[in-house]
Amino acid sequence: MFLASASPGSHLNVLLTLLIMWVAAKLMAELFERLRQPAVVGEILAGVLIGASVLGWVAPTEITSTLAEIGVIFLLFTVGLETRPLDIFRVGRKAGLVAVLGVIVPMVCGYLLMRAWGATNVESLFIGTAMVATSVGITARVLGQMGLLDLDTSRIILGAAIIDDILGLLILAVVSSVAEGRVDYLEIALTAGLAIGFTLFIAFVGAPAVTKMAPRIDNLRMENSFFVFGLALCLGLSVAAAYIGVAAIIGAFLAGMALAEATEGQKTMHKQMNGVTEFLVPFFLVSIGMQLKLDVFRDPSVLALTVLVTLVAVITKLVGGGAGALSLGWRQAGQVGMGMVPRGEVGVVVAQIGLGLAVINDALFGVVLFMAVATTLIAPPFLKMLYARDAMTD
Amino acid sequence: MFLASASPGSHLNVLLTLLIMWVAAKLMAELFERLRQPAVVGEILAGVLIGASVLGWVAPTEITSTLAEIGVIFLLFTVGLETRPLDIFRVGRKAGLVAVLGVIVPMVCGYLLMRAWGATNVESLFIGTAMVATSVGITARVLGQMGLLDLDTSRIILGAAIIDDILGLLILAVVSSVAEGRVDYLEIALTAGLAIGFTLFIAFVGAPAVTKMAPRIDNLRMENSFFVFGLALCLGLSVAAAYIGVAAIIGAFLAGMALAEATEGQKTMHKQMNGVTEFLVPFFLVSIGMQLKLDVFRDPSVLALTVLVTLVAVITKLVGGGAGALSLGWRQAGQVGMGMVPRGEVGVVVAQIGLGLAVINDALFGVVLFMAVATTLIAPPFLKMLYARDAMTD
Repeated sequence: MFLASASPGSHLNVLLTLLIMWVAAKLMAELFERLRQPAVVGEILAGVLIGASVLGWVAPTEITSTLAEIGVIFLLFTVGLETRPLDIFRVGRKAGLVAVLGVIVPMVCGYLLMRAWGATNVESLFIGTAMVATSVGITARVLGQMGLLDLDTSRIILGAAIIDDILGLLILAVVSSVAEGRVDYLEIALTAGLAIGFTLFIAFVGAPAVTKMAPRIDNLRMENSFFVFGLALCLGLSVAAAYIGVAAIIGAFLAGMALAEATEGQKTMHKQMNGVTEFLVPFFLVSIGMQLKLDVFRDPSVLALTVLVTLVAVITKLVGGGAGALSLGWRQAGQVGMGMVPRGEVGVVVAQIGLGLAVINDALFGVVLFMAVATTLIAPPFLKMLYARDAMTD
Repeated sequence: MFLASASPGSHLNVLLTLLIMWVAAKLMAELFERLRQPAVVGEILAGVLIGASVLGWVAPTEITSTLAEIGVIFLLFTVGLETRPLDIFRVGRKAGLVAVLGVIVPMVCGYLLMRAWGATNVESLFIGTAMVATSVGITARVLGQMGLLDLDTSRIILGAAIIDDILGLLILAVVSSVAEGRVDYLEIALTAGLAIGFTLFIAFVGAPAVTKMAPRIDNLRMENSFFVFGLALCLGLSVAAAYIGVAAIIGAFLAGMALAEATEGQKTMHKQMNGVTEFLVPFFLVSIGMQLKLDVFRDPSVLALTVLVTLVAVITKLVGGGAGALSLGWRQAGQVGMGMVPRGEVGVVVAQIGLGLAVINDALFGVVLFMAVATTLIAPPFLKMLYARDAMTD
């Protein structure tokens, strides 16, 4: 099997495809880092570049889509690993208010905009959902580079972004269930109940249980027992989530959350996990880019919708998130609102699921992808401006 | 595509398959560690257990075979990472003699045994080749646990095992080229020349070049630049090797060797690599086990051949390797010879390639797999006996 010349082109082609995808992703990541832009955007653009829209070097196959799925599962697992339930309780009411308003305003406005545009109910729900999640990574990196992670507003942003992720995934579970044609309110309520119950169970029962079990896991005879246990839990809960009808990524996220407390400070485990995601996540991001059909933007109405959706996405998060933090003062509210703007990879995941369910078409996929990428690129310079005074007085 | 319920059974089944394979591998690894046996054997047996021969839970698919191939590529990459060309030059003549005799004796005896048994020329060549490589990992772990890695004989064993790997891969390249029907001596010589040239080029030009470039790689803007560069080189040389007609794993091994010097002591890079292999290598080992058809051993002649091949594999390495170290004294020669006995994963790789090329059948695959596993299990207790006196006087 391993000799390409044995069955000409078969395994060699698979290897070549993986090589091109991976190296393209990493070259673009390096380029974007040099331009002081997020690497994640570079990796998505690498996919656009090598995909059918531009160079046509690589086409999606079952293999690439499986690797992409494993990649996004591990991506959400690592997001979960940074989500300690206790931390969320600690940031308390203020972050909760920011998160909830930062979810409702974009969701409702996005939905209404799409309905006004003439989109169907399900399409509008999906676009609204894609506007919900906040990508904490981008803002955290900007604030970290400025040395401002200890500010009150920084803590509120990070806490609210985590709550947004959880709310976003719950909304996604419900919206997907609507998209699959379950118009029965009982069924939708059941999905929502299952997703919420699963989340609460992990937060209140699973996480403490894992933390309590930690010394026993450490005592296992195998090497890297924590890493192995983590991966097994991640794959196991992904399959379990898919079985009960919510997305596999929700299970992966919850697995990470369950382990967050127990693995805090476990440097080896985090580095090993980092190795796995560093290898697999590019396949997810490049696959996303490969699925973008650039020619959808030739249609002026799609282009107009793209600009509108992006504008609404920026303004609604700014206003919704900001309103939640208004008690801190206007400047702080602006900082918090802007900190919530980047949608990053989570908005992209929603778009991908919508495309996979065939409830949004190539044009809407392009609109959402552009929105996710644009909000990610727009926010950092504004954030730096809004925080400039804090950085000076710091 | 991430919602299993969206397209019933498709992605959910893939995830479930991967979950079963991975968790079975890790459970058996843990069990074998508790029995003080090599984890690698446990993971292969996990494949036998869940495969068609016993439980029939999981069948090989294109996805599992691709993951297995990526797994074995990274496995050989990490073997290469431990292979510093300078170290091989240092252990010098004695290890070279042990390695060469430890290659020639098993290869020739294995070939002759199979010919005498009535096997074809190509079959016999493959079985002979599978007897060549030494799995350094098993012996290194036994000696490490006894605290004896600093002994002269230990250094010779480890050095010779590395040379064996290189010789084994070169022989594999030539034998595969024969197996593909290239009976033309010129073509076979060309393959051998390419494989040797490729190896020498990496050892004498590639490795020093990478070592020289190391500070520049470190200066790249991306995170984990060394790890990323390493993976890109691994995938790149694997594809290059497949293109010129030698196995992809040879390219992966050479990529590791090129990086060995530059990444020595780079703990983060090694831990990240460890994460990747810990996730992917089980798919290779379980796939191997899944391909074993247990009922081939119902045929008494196959059973007899299995016992014979295993005996010859043990004796020829013991005698061949030992003869090379005879100048150190009888006891030391015995230690070195026994240290070379385990075939481990490299013998398994050869069997896998033979099966993939359809030059060995299920029965012979079973014979080789049994030999590789048995030599790996047999050697450690004898090694402990042979080294008992050194451990006491140490």
